[in-house]
Amino acid sequence: MTIDRQSLRWNGWGPANQENPIPDGAPQWAWIRETLNMTVLPTTPAKPMADITMPPCHLGTDEISSFAAIVGENQVRTDDYERALHARGKSYHDLLYVRAGDLAVAPDAIVYPRSAKEVQAVLTLCTEKDIAVIPFGGGSSVVGGINAHGRSAEDKVITLDLTLMESILNIDRVSMTARIEAGIYGPKLEEKLQAQGLTLGHYPQSFQYSTLGGWVAARGAGQQSNRYGKAEKWLVSARLATPSGLWATEEAPASAAGPNLNQLVAGSEGTLGVICDVTIKIHEVPETKDYRGYLFKDFAAGVEVSRTINHADIPVAMVRLSDASETHFFQTFGASDSGGLKSKLQAAYLKWKGFATDPCLMLIGLEGDKATVKWAKERTSDICKKAGALSIGSGPGDKWYHGRFNSPHGRDPMMDRGIGIDTLETATRWSNIGTLHEKVTAAIQTALNENVGEPGQTGVVMAHVSHSYPDGASLYFTFVFPRNLSDEIGQWQKIKRAASDVLTANGGTITHHHGVGTDHAPWLAEEKGAMGITLLKALKAQLDPKGIMNPGKLLKL
Amino acid sequence: MTIDRQSLRWNGWGPANQENPIPDGAPQWAWIRETLNMTVLPTTPAKPMADITMPPCHLGTDEISSFAAIVGENQVRTDDYERALHARGKSYHDLLYVRAGDLAVAPDAIVYPRSAKEVQAVLTLCTEKDIAVIPFGGGSSVVGGINAHGRSAEDKVITLDLTLMESILNIDRVSMTARIEAGIYGPKLEEKLQAQGLTLGHYPQSFQYSTLGGWVAARGAGQQSNRYGKAEKWLVSARLATPSGLWATEEAPASAAGPNLNQLVAGSEGTLGVICDVTIKIHEVPETKDYRGYLFKDFAAGVEVSRTINHADIPVAMVRLSDASETHFFQTFGASDSGGLKSKLQAAYLKWKGFATDPCLMLIGLEGDKATVKWAKERTSDICKKAGALSIGSGPGDKWYHGRFNSPHGRDPMMDRGIGIDTLETATRWSNIGTLHEKVTAAIQTALNENVGEPGQTGVVMAHVSHSYPDGASLYFTFVFPRNLSDEIGQWQKIKRAASDVLTANGGTITHHHGVGTDHAPWLAEEKGAMGITLLKALKAQLDPKGIMNPGKLLKL
Repeated sequence: MTIDRQSLRWNGWGPANQENPIPDGAPQWAWIRETLNMTVLPTTPAKPMADITMPPCHLGTDEISSFAAIVGENQVRTDDYERALHARGKSYHDLLYVRAGDLAVAPDAIVYPRSAKEVQAVLTLCTEKDIAVIPFGGGSSVVGGINAHGRSAEDKVITLDLTLMESILNIDRVSMTARIEAGIYGPKLEEKLQAQGLTLGHYPQSFQYSTLGGWVAARGAGQQSNRYGKAEKWLVSARLATPSGLWATEEAPASAAGPNLNQLVAGSEGTLGVICDVTIKIHEVPETKDYRGYLFKDFAAGVEVSRTINHADIPVAMVRLSDASETHFFQTFGASDSGGLKSKLQAAYLKWKGFATDPCLMLIGLEGDKATVKWAKERTSDICKKAGALSIGSGPGDKWYHGRFNSPHGRDPMMDRGIGIDTLETATRWSNIGTLHEKVTAAIQTALNENVGEPGQTGVVMAHVSHSYPDGASLYFTFVFPRNLSDEIGQWQKIKRAASDVLTANGGTITHHHGVGTDHAPWLAEEKGAMGITLLKALKAQLDPKGIMNPGKLLKL
Repeated sequence: MTIDRQSLRWNGWGPANQENPIPDGAPQWAWIRETLNMTVLPTTPAKPMADITMPPCHLGTDEISSFAAIVGENQVRTDDYERALHARGKSYHDLLYVRAGDLAVAPDAIVYPRSAKEVQAVLTLCTEKDIAVIPFGGGSSVVGGINAHGRSAEDKVITLDLTLMESILNIDRVSMTARIEAGIYGPKLEEKLQAQGLTLGHYPQSFQYSTLGGWVAARGAGQQSNRYGKAEKWLVSARLATPSGLWATEEAPASAAGPNLNQLVAGSEGTLGVICDVTIKIHEVPETKDYRGYLFKDFAAGVEVSRTINHADIPVAMVRLSDASETHFFQTFGASDSGGLKSKLQAAYLKWKGFATDPCLMLIGLEGDKATVKWAKERTSDICKKAGALSIGSGPGDKWYHGRFNSPHGRDPMMDRGIGIDTLETATRWSNIGTLHEKVTAAIQTALNENVGEPGQTGVVMAHVSHSYPDGASLYFTFVFPRNLSDEIGQWQKIKRAASDVLTANGGTITHHHGVGTDHAPWLAEEKGAMGITLLKALKAQLDPKGIMNPGKLLKL
């Protein structure tokens, strides 16, 4: 497979041998401690696997043999490392469990199929034996989307790890589509496509550790979704194995032949079946890229420019506007992690401070042929200047671009020092962006401050707008806080509930690209309506009558 | 209501007092007769209503009274004119029935609700009384989508005419969305929006006689869909009355909160419920428009340019490429219907003929702000010239634009003279456009020639490519033929079957924007797959357990 399971952190982000991006003594530690008003940063290491007792495997040897008969003996794993790695995803919430050594939800076995046919055979077997199935790609879900829950605590559960299914089945260079197996990791996918001058252009922050099938299942978005589209936009068609049999969706470029069922696959989160391969829209590798920064005196002015650029039909890859808090964090925290850039950025920051008390940074990313990028640069530059923004050149854009997958690596060392960090995201109509930004920020800030470990401690909330659409845009919140070490799960739940309640009560979707999983499932009915939930249940009942597929995700048990 | 029912042709297109665009003695008649190799053009008038016996109304006075109690006495109609107008849509196939005086499928009554609440009450009553319901907007379906079939010949059937529901409920100028009642006709919708400087930009050929709800239900496309989007793209959310209750869909600009259920509404064709109001994406009225023509030496070169323009991210409203046959028809047939333009066009045509034996006309339409239109004009012009096309200026573009809703008006006079004319449309991937164009053209041509009324007669097939997407484009076929007056329905069925079989066997969708209705339903399973049909049936069973909603449409009975 692309990535050797043993080389991955089972209880953190990325490779086991990942260099610590915030080593002891780095200046960020003092800044964080002061910002969060903590007197000391406690030492809170994760429990090593040697100290953890795994739950017993509920599968009998006959069942293990049955799986082995389908996929081969070596493709059925029951060892502790595999079960720990596949127990939970990579959310802050998940890490609280796995770092504490709570692996109660570990699957009983992990099965690695190598073809749609094998997947279908496994599902048929699991239907017959009444075993729950968790489809798993990179396992990078941050909403509990691949956690190995059964329908009940007694349920037998296998995880279906799809990463051996990574072939490109077909490329149509004229139609610019490719049919690819769903288990392929981001880097392998782009490596194979780019060798032919092609790209999907889907680069979520999880890019290095997530898979094509997962992007579709979670309705994910890459950072350049304005150019390349969210998963539901670049999805052409899919082939799923389901407990009721194979489901191959229609694939016309556009059609009036009834509802488009591909839009049921995108966002299905493994609850309807296993996505085995997908046909996607691809592009020529862009001739050139241009990422540059502008500073706005306030958030509202930046939002208005983001909207104007979208409504003017200018071909942008990304427009990302940080609020004042995130802009400040980007400068302070990011300055020291890239050597020589530090002083340059600090100088720029001083200039910003002269420009505005609390400047907001907008990064505009352009990709395409040279003429189009030049045209788009001129037009976006005009719009920014007319709105009173300060152009600060390509430095911040390049810096962001080169570090765009790095920030998750900072979480593990923070977790080791009593600090919590989590994110959540939404989307809403343009007329509501400002209000929603204020309300969610306030709700998270209040929840953080009311649930810190010690009186006087405080949390930090920051946000950016990205992924813009004709009718609205996404908002992405990051929050950092001192953990309440005596009730970490309860602390997280209170913060999550506060933010989610405000989102659904104020016209924000519960998630723009992370998905629903278990963590957002309590709020889904508010968004889809009772009838919507009824329809989703009717679809599931048709494809998965026994409810074995990814129990508790999307729809509550 | 917007359009007085009595002013509309119950057995043809448009207003009863429509001027005949091809009067007796017009030069087109000789050209058509010669082209189709007919010795004479027979006189084949439609049966006047006075000579037709309507089927009896199956509803009892108690049932009529129950409807009247909901919507008011004057909003329940059972007179012959209303029943005839609502019996069938406007396809060639439909006209064969209604012109012959066969109104066997006329609804028993027509009910005109004025609110979603009234619609819901009517559905509740119909569920209780087991009466079939046909949702009806403009009635312009060309696939049998609103024909008043019951579940059986004995079924009681009402048509729910929604054209009293035409209010704009809300406009959000920041998010550029509007919530509008579904029964509003195209012209009224644009009149109301444009009074505020806004537009939906959805202009199907049926624009004048079709409604917002119908566009969504049929997943329709406007001629400028490249800029404004097909219905499923500009649909933000919808509110439907269903036999199981009200269904309001989610409305985020983008979301990862499970499958997007709006994509089940688009294309539902009244089989799941009645679309009462929809929220749509709107635009500023474009500052400028530019429609101009280019000639290509062959069809393949034009297709390649259409693809290149799409993949280059150039903001176009329309790229429409006629094949050689349609280009020839456009010149010959269209020349005489606009007075002074005739000689100019003929001169142009001579020039074209020097350029190529069988030139293909491409019309490129641009809309937007002046700078964008200028940029797009330069880029498209460059691409066309590099491909060896001949620029022929804005004349053909303007001519097409001003006559873009006219051609359906020519059908009624042709029907009066023994001539049949029908259209069908599809979409396929770019790599398949050329092949599919050839195969469908050949299949229709063969079917036409094998099923003419008299030996030696022949039909004409022509096509254009429009509505382009990253992965493919639509193909629209028009065919003209001498009717076999002794078996008109059989003749049409053979032609339809030949074309549809070739479409589904060769990677074309059965319909790009006309919808499925009854006429395409036999081919839907081929396209959606058995599992897809099962899922659509499961959804219908949930929302419409008794199957009263628009029986036989989309899904076969």
